[in-house]
Amino acid sequence: MDVNHINMQGGNCEPERPAHPRIFPTCEAGKSDHQPGERSVDFPVSVVLPAGGTGERTGLQTPKQFCSFLGRPLISYTVQAFERVSWIQSIVVVVAKENVDLMTDIIQRFQHRKVRVVPGGSTRHRSICNGVLALGEGEEAAAADRPKVVIIHDAVRPFVEEDFLYKIAMAAKEQGAAGAIRPLVSTVIATTTEGYLDHSLERAKYRASEMPQGFTYDVIYQAYQRCSESDFEFGTECLHLALQYCGTNAKLIQGPPTLWKVTYKRDLAAAESIIKETLSQSACAVTGGSTQAVTLADALQKAVGALEMELDVIPDLMGENARYLLKEWNFIQVSVNRSCLSEVEALLTDLEAANRALLHPLVVIWVHLSASDELSISGRMAELATIMDLAAAAKLRNILLYGIQLHQSKDTERWDRSVLKVAEITSALIRERSPALVGQLLQA
Amino acid sequence: MDVNHINMQGGNCEPERPAHPRIFPTCEAGKSDHQPGERSVDFPVSVVLPAGGTGERTGLQTPKQFCSFLGRPLISYTVQAFERVSWIQSIVVVVAKENVDLMTDIIQRFQHRKVRVVPGGSTRHRSICNGVLALGEGEEAAAADRPKVVIIHDAVRPFVEEDFLYKIAMAAKEQGAAGAIRPLVSTVIATTTEGYLDHSLERAKYRASEMPQGFTYDVIYQAYQRCSESDFEFGTECLHLALQYCGTNAKLIQGPPTLWKVTYKRDLAAAESIIKETLSQSACAVTGGSTQAVTLADALQKAVGALEMELDVIPDLMGENARYLLKEWNFIQVSVNRSCLSEVEALLTDLEAANRALLHPLVVIWVHLSASDELSISGRMAELATIMDLAAAAKLRNILLYGIQLHQSKDTERWDRSVLKVAEITSALIRERSPALVGQLLQA
Repeated sequence: MDVNHINMQGGNCEPERPAHPRIFPTCEAGKSDHQPGERSVDFPVSVVLPAGGTGERTGLQTPKQFCSFLGRPLISYTVQAFERVSWIQSIVVVVAKENVDLMTDIIQRFQHRKVRVVPGGSTRHRSICNGVLALGEGEEAAAADRPKVVIIHDAVRPFVEEDFLYKIAMAAKEQGAAGAIRPLVSTVIATTTEGYLDHSLERAKYRASEMPQGFTYDVIYQAYQRCSESDFEFGTECLHLALQYCGTNAKLIQGPPTLWKVTYKRDLAAAESIIKETLSQSACAVTGGSTQAVTLADALQKAVGALEMELDVIPDLMGENARYLLKEWNFIQVSVNRSCLSEVEALLTDLEAANRALLHPLVVIWVHLSASDELSISGRMAELATIMDLAAAAKLRNILLYGIQLHQSKDTERWDRSVLKVAEITSALIRERSPALVGQLLQA
Repeated sequence: MDVNHINMQGGNCEPERPAHPRIFPTCEAGKSDHQPGERSVDFPVSVVLPAGGTGERTGLQTPKQFCSFLGRPLISYTVQAFERVSWIQSIVVVVAKENVDLMTDIIQRFQHRKVRVVPGGSTRHRSICNGVLALGEGEEAAAADRPKVVIIHDAVRPFVEEDFLYKIAMAAKEQGAAGAIRPLVSTVIATTTEGYLDHSLERAKYRASEMPQGFTYDVIYQAYQRCSESDFEFGTECLHLALQYCGTNAKLIQGPPTLWKVTYKRDLAAAESIIKETLSQSACAVTGGSTQAVTLADALQKAVGALEMELDVIPDLMGENARYLLKEWNFIQVSVNRSCLSEVEALLTDLEAANRALLHPLVVIWVHLSASDELSISGRMAELATIMDLAAAAKLRNILLYGIQLHQSKDTERWDRSVLKVAEITSALIRERSPALVGQLLQA
């Protein structure tokens, strides 16, 4: 599927949900998920990520790039978007001096690679310039080790995709500079000094300049060497510096709407929603292979399918199926007539061994099909206590465990209703990923 | 508190959470919630809401204005934002011919007043023009019955506040035209026909033109009488028509970020998050007055306070306290040592009588404090069955009922942990408003 094509289509309400494997690597951090056959570049490319905001200007306690989404700071999502691209050789994150330690901790905690932290300057251009200079330094500061192309991006635009980075890198190499643009959402108007309408611009002739932008190292380096103090102090647009000081007219490329910048409080909600939706596209049901469990899982597959979630049903996670441990964010363990959670315990152990919950909280749902309407009180209490304990321990490892009980029924209508309810609860738990509800045993 | 002042402050990440009572009326639909002391206008003001999109251009199945948020279409939220303003006398919603019936149904279903539905034209300007003309018609089409000022707004900007409407109406009356502006988020650049950077605009001189806009009836009427076919076909900016055809320079007023237009898919998530957050600011705990219940409710008040939710504790909903039925979106019924849900049933009856769930789903949480760790199996089963049945019936009336059980404990540490858990679950249930989880009996 040509994801980029879908995202690039015109119109004002383009679907912007990123395709699952593009936004988030489907293997654990620390390994490349570069797919054979994807386009690559044959010259060195590095990235400068200015993340210098201290939050003072915005009035928020935490600068946006350090706001947490499902337990991970936004900047980590952005770094991840670049580190998974095999042809990007290094990433320089430029942060305010007081945040260097914080950023270093984030890199260690989420096991990011290829990343260096550089202290920023007093303005955006000074920070980017520091990042560019850092790329030309190093132990072997020979010209040959410098990147051919430097991509500059915002720390608060976490959803940039490889295909678009490829286009920017190629155009930058060819033209000297390239930048992402988007159609204007509002009419732009010029105002008089008294606050009245002077004139409105013809929308079709103008575009919003967005990120990422790409430059050959030479162009961006020279632009910063030649530009004025006033540019460093008040300038906002790298493309403008390239034009003014190097005579380089940037190639402009329309980017997908997912490139938008997390700016307002509402954008935090939008970003969280995109992340959650991306994690909720699919799940994997492990049945153990018993006929009853398989029948239930198959019915569940159909029911969650109607709720737009894909469900793969497998007997276990052995052999070939072990791949699910490396690519799935949601697991359903189906148990029949068994008032014990040993299968769930085994699953949790497997998931922990795969280091899966480092980047995102995993969801594990224990679906327990019991034959009778009644359960011995001691059995039920033991079950509740066990799942609570397991969930409390799993939560510390970023795994969210929930339970759902349903009863076998020969009444077809009642059975269908129960299955539908399991599907609805499953879908809600996976989409909401609520830490407050872990360890609960819900009834379907 | 000057809400508007807070929302109007500069900077790029202004808080945009609307103040609770401003965005959503705190009384049921069909009554004005105009507060004495708020500024009013002493001339007739009407509103034209173009909602003509059919979704064809956007590729979405449902046009954005008809997308549902917590069971109610976006356009209904926007209509509500205007109908609650006492000095607005009428609202004309302009929709595509094929959506006239749908819009009429929405108005009936959510008991909107002051609203007329008018079929739109083939372009935005033709639709707005139809709306303006409709304001001048009517059984008594005397000039005296026409509005002095017409406010034009987008159907997909649901969070407009009375204070800002007041500013627009006053400036429109004084100047002939007025419009909302916002600072530009991105640099605006001019492109060459070949797709290269031509030049970038100096950001400080330009603004994004937003909605609402206000005009005297005469200015907007004349502008549409005089403008060209080409304006009707390709124009986007009413302020521009007023300037060109009536010589009226609009007064530009900076609006709060909440005025943003729901444009992309991510904006749907942002809008839903704002709505949910607005509904989750506070709750009301009903104790019945017993010491144990009051103690629990007081502890809960402190615990949810730490989670940024205000909790009022009251013995019952009689007398003075009946006001909560008309202003609160979330109720907690605390029951002690009682394995029956009659108190919850009574609360549900009261809420239904108050017609409270017409505009938003109400949340009712039954918190059951039991003295012993063990409950008879028949008692527990009966409880489960009862809450499931009650919840299923309540859901049909847009009331979401959940249960939480906790056990009395003399172990202070254990007790505190339980209360904290009740608070966390309560907060999650209220914030998420998940229909899939109604009728569950959760354990704290």
